[in-house]
Amino acid sequence: MREAVLYGPRDVRFEERDTPTILKPTDAIIRMAVTSVCGSDLWPYRGIQPVTQPTPMGHEYCGIVEEVGSAVRSIKPGQFVIGSFFASDNTCPNCQVGYQSSCQHREFVGGAQAALLRVPLADGTLVATPDVPSDELIPSLLSTSDVLGTGWFAAAAANVQPGKTVAVVGDGAVGLLGMLSAKQMGAERLIAMSRYESRQQLAREFGATDIVTERGDEGVARIMELTNGTGADAVLECVGTQESMMQAVRSTRKGGYVSYVGVPHGVELKGEELFYAHVHLHGGPAPVRRFLPELIDLVWNGRINPGKVFDLTLPLDQVAEGYRAMDERRAIKTLLRP
Amino acid sequence: MREAVLYGPRDVRFEERDTPTILKPTDAIIRMAVTSVCGSDLWPYRGIQPVTQPTPMGHEYCGIVEEVGSAVRSIKPGQFVIGSFFASDNTCPNCQVGYQSSCQHREFVGGAQAALLRVPLADGTLVATPDVPSDELIPSLLSTSDVLGTGWFAAAAANVQPGKTVAVVGDGAVGLLGMLSAKQMGAERLIAMSRYESRQQLAREFGATDIVTERGDEGVARIMELTNGTGADAVLECVGTQESMMQAVRSTRKGGYVSYVGVPHGVELKGEELFYAHVHLHGGPAPVRRFLPELIDLVWNGRINPGKVFDLTLPLDQVAEGYRAMDERRAIKTLLRP
Repeated sequence: MREAVLYGPRDVRFEERDTPTILKPTDAIIRMAVTSVCGSDLWPYRGIQPVTQPTPMGHEYCGIVEEVGSAVRSIKPGQFVIGSFFASDNTCPNCQVGYQSSCQHREFVGGAQAALLRVPLADGTLVATPDVPSDELIPSLLSTSDVLGTGWFAAAAANVQPGKTVAVVGDGAVGLLGMLSAKQMGAERLIAMSRYESRQQLAREFGATDIVTERGDEGVARIMELTNGTGADAVLECVGTQESMMQAVRSTRKGGYVSYVGVPHGVELKGEELFYAHVHLHGGPAPVRRFLPELIDLVWNGRINPGKVFDLTLPLDQVAEGYRAMDERRAIKTLLRP
Repeated sequence: MREAVLYGPRDVRFEERDTPTILKPTDAIIRMAVTSVCGSDLWPYRGIQPVTQPTPMGHEYCGIVEEVGSAVRSIKPGQFVIGSFFASDNTCPNCQVGYQSSCQHREFVGGAQAALLRVPLADGTLVATPDVPSDELIPSLLSTSDVLGTGWFAAAAANVQPGKTVAVVGDGAVGLLGMLSAKQMGAERLIAMSRYESRQQLAREFGATDIVTERGDEGVARIMELTNGTGADAVLECVGTQESMMQAVRSTRKGGYVSYVGVPHGVELKGEELFYAHVHLHGGPAPVRRFLPELIDLVWNGRINPGKVFDLTLPLDQVAEGYRAMDERRAIKTLLRP
């Protein structure tokens, strides 16, 4: 079986590797319907987070169950399933409070940019759709696996409520779906911080009412202008850099909420500034499993169309071009068809 | 009029200064019933936060209104009132959402270790008691001005709820009243991190069910042991150092809540550690004004007795000894009588 493997900065190869098999009785093997490239794949792709050995890539997946281990009870071959980047047992104390991405037995799911994938802890990790979906639903269903689940967590962690003013820092796919999520949760005013035309357009489709093109201190000043000097009730930080984090904190009203969902790279928060900022802060790896049933339901019933973030579709064997297009910002997000 | 003035490290003098007068029509002058030394007064006292000029000290106060400015409407001479360390108009957008300590017109109230005090923004800042209180209620009423208000905010900001497991880092007066507050809010298990016998005893009186004497990594390990490896639902950080902050973050369960209410000194939070800790974080200068009516009511009706944190009472002219006793940990908190 061939799959995407990262060898070093900007060196993704689609090459022959062992076909995955059941290793533990709680595993499942799924045959990929579609997969995709995540914004977080770009950190190692760009060499910012170096890889020490050739690394199978991809952690966004959905497809048909091919085989299950002997201990798997609820997931069955033939089902169409979706899972998250962290496999979770969904029964440990962390899972029970809705933090499945911190499951005490979590395992990172890698190597999804392939035709077949082994998913550990299948019963706790995978959620089946009501039926095998039609082709046009599949991109949106795939998005629930990570990018929508993460954007949704960003909005939930920032306590978005009906009538609130929400700002989103970052116009990548997660930021854009953070906007869709905030809109679904009732945000009245939705400010997208975005400098790119095509992304601004999608932001508006997803519910953005205002666009701020400035960044850093100027971006903060613009948010303050738009909110009569008080700041936004909720700010979703969907980038993961020092600049974006501070932009989020400083754009938030006193007592407001900042969420952050991208792995922070080199971010340091000064205690004293945070203290006087008076914000609530919450984030981390999105517990996508918590939201999957609700998100699948919203997609299944046509209430949301998050699949619009995929603006480039390629056959899986052109995965390297999929990375390049995102790296060079020619694409927001690449869908890959095995 | 004589008052406490800090000249430099460990140099508090009780000396003659101008008697305060009404400077703005929104001011009030109050005659101090009692005042006290705050844990935060020890930062400049110890030279950790240097003073650049002789500085009138004290910001915990209650007493009888002596005089009000021409624009003051709700506060009247003769009333017994309590206020917080930040004067607030209680009408600006930040005040309206309950963050009066970030009022857009806030002013720090200093110089309360004196017989008379000017309080700005009197209508927004001061809360009157139902009547002139009896002597035995006065220490507890004074505590609402800061130390209880801050401990209460610590518990509220850590989302303490009935049935939860709560840990408190810091056994100073704020930490101890954080415990009292958490108990009032229904904490089932209440873990005090304390190394001092007399403070442990008060912690138990205020509702602590467990005492952890270890600090740092060992303290974290002990909390993990006590919570079956998951961590506490809520941790109140009531110190303000890097060690105490990280102890709080690491003692909290995934998805749990960390509050911090002491001005952080040299604290830096690494984004990536915070990300994987998966905690909620909230804190800042306590918006005591939000809680004053409720706290005064609880004290007035004898439901709580936070005045127990005052284990040393001195005449105001011995204020220097009041600081020394707290600095040397001979006293938890000093009450001063003008």
